[in-house]
Amino acid sequence: MVLLNDYGHGGDVYRHRVRLDFSANVNPLGTPPEVVRAIADSASRCAAYPDPYCTVLRQKLAAVHGVSSEQVVCGNGAAELIFQFALALRPKRALLPVPSFSEYDAALQAVGCEVCDFPLRREEGFAVTEALLDAITPETEALLLCTPNNPTGRSIAPEMLEKILARCRAAGTWLLLDECFLDLTDKGAEKSIIPALRDGDRCLVLRAFTKLYGMAGVRLGYVVCKNREMLLEMCRTVQPWNVSAPAQAAGEAALDCREFVARTLRLIAEEKDYLLREIRALGIRVLPGDANFLMLSGVPGLCGKMLEKGILLRSCANYRGLDEGDCRIAVRTHPENAELIAALREVTGHA
Amino acid sequence: MVLLNDYGHGGDVYRHRVRLDFSANVNPLGTPPEVVRAIADSASRCAAYPDPYCTVLRQKLAAVHGVSSEQVVCGNGAAELIFQFALALRPKRALLPVPSFSEYDAALQAVGCEVCDFPLRREEGFAVTEALLDAITPETEALLLCTPNNPTGRSIAPEMLEKILARCRAAGTWLLLDECFLDLTDKGAEKSIIPALRDGDRCLVLRAFTKLYGMAGVRLGYVVCKNREMLLEMCRTVQPWNVSAPAQAAGEAALDCREFVARTLRLIAEEKDYLLREIRALGIRVLPGDANFLMLSGVPGLCGKMLEKGILLRSCANYRGLDEGDCRIAVRTHPENAELIAALREVTGHA
Repeated sequence: MVLLNDYGHGGDVYRHRVRLDFSANVNPLGTPPEVVRAIADSASRCAAYPDPYCTVLRQKLAAVHGVSSEQVVCGNGAAELIFQFALALRPKRALLPVPSFSEYDAALQAVGCEVCDFPLRREEGFAVTEALLDAITPETEALLLCTPNNPTGRSIAPEMLEKILARCRAAGTWLLLDECFLDLTDKGAEKSIIPALRDGDRCLVLRAFTKLYGMAGVRLGYVVCKNREMLLEMCRTVQPWNVSAPAQAAGEAALDCREFVARTLRLIAEEKDYLLREIRALGIRVLPGDANFLMLSGVPGLCGKMLEKGILLRSCANYRGLDEGDCRIAVRTHPENAELIAALREVTGHA
Repeated sequence: MVLLNDYGHGGDVYRHRVRLDFSANVNPLGTPPEVVRAIADSASRCAAYPDPYCTVLRQKLAAVHGVSSEQVVCGNGAAELIFQFALALRPKRALLPVPSFSEYDAALQAVGCEVCDFPLRREEGFAVTEALLDAITPETEALLLCTPNNPTGRSIAPEMLEKILARCRAAGTWLLLDECFLDLTDKGAEKSIIPALRDGDRCLVLRAFTKLYGMAGVRLGYVVCKNREMLLEMCRTVQPWNVSAPAQAAGEAALDCREFVARTLRLIAEEKDYLLREIRALGIRVLPGDANFLMLSGVPGLCGKMLEKGILLRSCANYRGLDEGDCRIAVRTHPENAELIAALREVTGHA
């Protein structure tokens, strides 16, 4: 929970009157009906405590990823697991490529960690390059990486990821690799680092149901990790009942929604093409990201003007390494995207 | 989440085949229909992130307790807030009357705190007496107290509580007072310490929806505290979206269920009388607790024998200061309680 007025994320439809929310990166198709039903059905069983072991859900996840269920730990959203990682490791020094999702920094700051920014370069499209390898030294206790990255949408090539993992192994560095948007990426399943993990590896792969299955409201994420001591330590930093009964029911149902996922990926691919084309036609710079969102640049003031039209974008001004001219938009359904383009056209004087 | 097979709480209906669960202390009437409906209704809105400020819920809670909404912080169940308190304060030394709820100890251990047990005496019915006052010294960074206490059911008299608060003020000690079962206690509202809190007091009052509104599965708790720095620090240890949308909806609906609460209190009072009378008639020692549960003593082996009959009790063998002869039972509906008594009669050879 946030006490003061310092919430710096997208999706805050509670404090903004919006007609269209392009600020949160959730599935444009929303929540699969099977998942909505599973949550609704769980309501009548909510007097009982949730299963503290998440038994069924973890078995299903283990089967999906080809690991054992002891290598899967679920959390109250992926964000909780970032904090659990920081609390379990309590690193003195961590390496953080920026710009990136701000909860990495928040979690590291919460344990008094010195956060060393590694600036990704705008002129390289914010790509993670071999230059990162040299920055991973034995003094680097942890490296927090996101692929595809938020808010740039850039993903890290599998060969590059394996080099990073090898470098982390050599340096004894813990790698938290956030793959929360990978399932929303074209051929995302082939880009996961999970198959490359070895027993004992100091690597946690973070995953979420939030985005792909449109269930940000119920909170469900997980890590896959082959280091048993780390998982045990992470579980010590948290209550036994952190994953609610509705979240477990939703997750179990979601994993059966294969057709929904295929439909989602088709929609995102088509609509991303449409958005890229139309936005470029307006003379706005946009990164060709791999995820279900796009980062626009060189458009200071755009978010405010769009909000006047009831359309919420995600200003990237509070991302380290970005500025007022940058903003992020989610890829949504065609009617919504068309409305966005029409509004952009007006705002940029192309109407 | 729990990774290994070391979950030591009641309510584990996932790993036991039970017909009747007397091990979890939730409302015998279950979840109010209005709350079930609110959770079910929230399912279709779960694509959006939950309100990170819990705005509506905190306004309602502030009105209930006569405080400002800035003095209320919500969590993913009361248990999460115990961890947030420990993580925010990181006390070196804490005082813990035992027996008590084991998550206090788990949260303190998670931050490397030295936990000084203060044994409550069986011959005094595990009451908190003036002897505790002398144990609160300037070296005591934190005191964690539960009223009525779990698993003994003993509550602390308001005069005694005020003495403890005064002593904590003098010693600079942080007091976490767990009132999670107070609303299930006869005249519980009159026994809360909240009206005695002064601005800046190092005191957090912990409250839950879990037990009173039968919503353990959705996870919702809160603290009332008049120390702003502590609340800010607690919010730094956690993600912004820890309180799910179903939990917020459930909590908002629950606070309107006044008739349900009145009915609950009448049922518990009647049924507790019945259970006390019948259990004593079987020659079993039972503490005259104030809460919606009772602690039985001198009955080693009872839990195992009852489980053979499909009835789950809460063995207290893993509570510090208790032993194999102690167990806890929840007060449930009359048909369930009558079945419990019939089974106890058989098991104790009174059938």
